[in-house]
Amino acid sequence: MKLKKISSLAFVFLLFLAACQQQLKEVQTAPTDPLPSWNDGKTKEAIISFVHTVTDKNSPEFVEPADRIATFDNDGTLWSEKPVYFQFLFAIDRIKVLSPEHPDWKTTQLFKAALENDLKTLMESGVHGLIEIVTLTHAGMSTDDFEEIVSDWITTAKHPDPRFKDRLFTEMVFQPMLELMDYLRANEFKVFIVSGGGIEFMRPWTDRVYGVPAEQVVGSSIKVKYEYVDGKPVLMRLPEINFIDDKEGKPVGINEHIGKKPIFAFGNSDGDRQMLEWAQSNTGKTFQGLVHHTDSIREWAYGADSKIGTFSNSLMQEADTSGWHVVSMKTDWKVIYPSELTK
Amino acid sequence: MKLKKISSLAFVFLLFLAACQQQLKEVQTAPTDPLPSWNDGKTKEAIISFVHTVTDKNSPEFVEPADRIATFDNDGTLWSEKPVYFQFLFAIDRIKVLSPEHPDWKTTQLFKAALENDLKTLMESGVHGLIEIVTLTHAGMSTDDFEEIVSDWITTAKHPDPRFKDRLFTEMVFQPMLELMDYLRANEFKVFIVSGGGIEFMRPWTDRVYGVPAEQVVGSSIKVKYEYVDGKPVLMRLPEINFIDDKEGKPVGINEHIGKKPIFAFGNSDGDRQMLEWAQSNTGKTFQGLVHHTDSIREWAYGADSKIGTFSNSLMQEADTSGWHVVSMKTDWKVIYPSELTK
Repeated sequence: MKLKKISSLAFVFLLFLAACQQQLKEVQTAPTDPLPSWNDGKTKEAIISFVHTVTDKNSPEFVEPADRIATFDNDGTLWSEKPVYFQFLFAIDRIKVLSPEHPDWKTTQLFKAALENDLKTLMESGVHGLIEIVTLTHAGMSTDDFEEIVSDWITTAKHPDPRFKDRLFTEMVFQPMLELMDYLRANEFKVFIVSGGGIEFMRPWTDRVYGVPAEQVVGSSIKVKYEYVDGKPVLMRLPEINFIDDKEGKPVGINEHIGKKPIFAFGNSDGDRQMLEWAQSNTGKTFQGLVHHTDSIREWAYGADSKIGTFSNSLMQEADTSGWHVVSMKTDWKVIYPSELTK
Repeated sequence: MKLKKISSLAFVFLLFLAACQQQLKEVQTAPTDPLPSWNDGKTKEAIISFVHTVTDKNSPEFVEPADRIATFDNDGTLWSEKPVYFQFLFAIDRIKVLSPEHPDWKTTQLFKAALENDLKTLMESGVHGLIEIVTLTHAGMSTDDFEEIVSDWITTAKHPDPRFKDRLFTEMVFQPMLELMDYLRANEFKVFIVSGGGIEFMRPWTDRVYGVPAEQVVGSSIKVKYEYVDGKPVLMRLPEINFIDDKEGKPVGINEHIGKKPIFAFGNSDGDRQMLEWAQSNTGKTFQGLVHHTDSIREWAYGADSKIGTFSNSLMQEADTSGWHVVSMKTDWKVIYPSELTK
């Protein structure tokens, strides 16, 4: 009788143990949402389905980890780009710092506009004006010194829009894209930035902000020259364009830096068209995405008519014909900036 | 009595078990030689001591894994480079393949020399001649097609020296350097190749042979252009130099591709001087090494007087003054090529 009681108790205990284990197992294998800031919908579904397919060893479309290359544009794709490219605001701040040493600048319309925060005149100066301002303000120092200047600026300068009062530029990054890059890395993708922006303007902070190390950043650059200063070698930055990593330049930059075609590419403008075509020309399954700025309340809304980050009608048409995924910020993203998570 | 016997047996058994565990532990923790093809000596000791120091969290000279960048020259550092750079032998083979389409080449001294395997005349044509031959034979096709041409050649072409009969060029790699790269990677270094050779001549095989993926190869390059062929995007290779990754070019290439200074750099010639200086200008502890070709029996012996892979007296002097480690192939390496391991 006693023995029977003990064995009954033991049986109950074993049942309880089994139940616990089952529960633990369920918790461990419960599918957690890898993209919590994305609304459910076609794009989110397509991303997850793509990642499942290329990482499934039993799929005919399985891709070896070494070939899981993902490339992301930066301006307008990973962080905002209004009222102008943030690097341009950095250049304007540099002009203000450097102007006492360059009294002649005050007579030049372009530099005068910069000193007066006249973004309209600056934007109307076109690519030529932008290049002139960027090369002059970004050259004449060593690469080490430039890194320090960028690091100082990026940790102190604030975005000018009153909606985002006191916000650092690195707080203007897109939470859904941070999650997407994390998700890809968790699935053994190697994530690269391929931006029209300056390579050395991005590298000092991309690892901290995006988890993308310097050696996985591709961008535009000016020439540098190996010299000795006080017997110590330096690379001096010259006021001369080396490479423009935009439009046709993006596949060229990808080829030079990565040497493999991406299988996953994300952009937001006409400047990314060739990068997406290049990824799509890869053998096997590929994914192309474009961020469409459709949210004038939480971010900005612009498209074919924009001076920067132009999303032309012909790009929209190519996206449609080619099966590229267009993300509408307004409807696809629950959250835009990381700060919204803590509200 | 019976119980005593059992407990004695159990005791003996436990002793036996403890002894086994001890032995297992010793096997598991026995220090295995990470560089078995290196003779014991100052250089091997310096390498191991350097790696221990920068990976020891309690050392004031600890370096975070993200900053453990190692750069290796290729020709003469990771594989042999005699009788001429192997890429040059590839170019000669290309001339032979292409010459029927270019009857005019037969009247050009340089191309005539190539068709007649006259290496002496070719070498005497200097850098200008080399560049002419390389750009012409390496251009005029897409990057995809060039990759295929290189892959075919590298898996079939044989080294011309009768000592190494029927040996593929990828079998002319240095076993001690393969071990060194493995050792660094096991200690969370990121290993890059930084070579004067063509970036797209190396990438098709460096992962397989050295464990260095395409995106970690830096080299010289010709220009490419984004085009559409039958509606499909290609990068066409143009007969125009884009970048020479040699001498002052090496720190420039490192800066462009990696964006961080190496803490460990290995070369073998005057072309690597600036790369080693650049690594040494990094903050914290660094390591610089040079392979000196001193073994005329097992490999080749050459130095200040050589036309390729020149190791000048001034380089030797700088190595001495700067504390760079000079490896003598003859005395520091037990084994040169992997094939010697299976003998």
